[in-house]
Amino acid sequence: MPGTETYQIHSIGYIHQGDGEVTLKLLKAYAPALRCLDKYSHVMVFWWASKHDNPKSRSIMQTQLPYAPGTTAGVFACRAEYRPNPIAMTVCKILKVDEAKGTVKLAKIDAFDGTPILDLKGYIPVCDRVKDVRTPSWYDGWPEWMPDDGLGLD
Amino acid sequence: MPGTETYQIHSIGYIHQGDGEVTLKLLKAYAPALRCLDKYSHVMVFWWASKHDNPKSRSIMQTQLPYAPGTTAGVFACRAEYRPNPIAMTVCKILKVDEAKGTVKLAKIDAFDGTPILDLKGYIPVCDRVKDVRTPSWYDGWPEWMPDDGLGLD
Repeated sequence: MPGTETYQIHSIGYIHQGDGEVTLKLLKAYAPALRCLDKYSHVMVFWWASKHDNPKSRSIMQTQLPYAPGTTAGVFACRAEYRPNPIAMTVCKILKVDEAKGTVKLAKIDAFDGTPILDLKGYIPVCDRVKDVRTPSWYDGWPEWMPDDGLGLD
Repeated sequence: MPGTETYQIHSIGYIHQGDGEVTLKLLKAYAPALRCLDKYSHVMVFWWASKHDNPKSRSIMQTQLPYAPGTTAGVFACRAEYRPNPIAMTVCKILKVDEAKGTVKLAKIDAFDGTPILDLKGYIPVCDRVKDVRTPSWYDGWPEWMPDDGLGLD
């Protein structure tokens, strides 16, 4: 098996969040890649958890779950932003896509203002929606679906 | 707005695919991060589309859709592996997790043997499952759910 290899990724834009509005602002060069995204209701936003892009955060392998006292889980079994590659992904409801301006208005996102964006992918049921799902018992009683406006910082 | 910034990511392991079996083999250092992943039925596998980690593939912003003749879409509106940051994500059905060995057996994945893995996240309905979805008309008639075993190379 090969060992660890290193790859380079780049910010394609930044998340702007404030006064209850969320806007993805892409760098000009990437705006044409938005073509037809307005035909989707939801987009998967891949973002860089930049606060955790440091050797300490990236070496954490297990964590105590705040919502399941006494449980230690691997970072691949939870959504902690500290992980070996701090790539986060949030499914978001699209309000408006403006290809000319390179912007996407969203209902909500759980990322801070100024967060770098890495990628966007339209949400497709045949790829992304699973009918029969089993999750750990600490999620018992949580909603069966994403909230209508998605998950925000609140 | 800040300009493009560059970040470093690392392979945490590799996808092994052959004879109808799919196994994620993590590098030893990352095996502890699998703790509790066996409590999930599905995992989102983030992988590096290494064949498209080159300047030409990473500069493609729009593409002709093979399944929608005459339609040009932005790469953020489709799942083309060539995109500015060739990070792919596949939702997969888990068959077996072995933390000691650092392996995860999956039903299927649409990535070639030897593909580098970047991250794993357990699939959680409240984050990842959207009830009311709108997609482009070229997906009319496609399944409303991920197939039971997920999407493979076939």
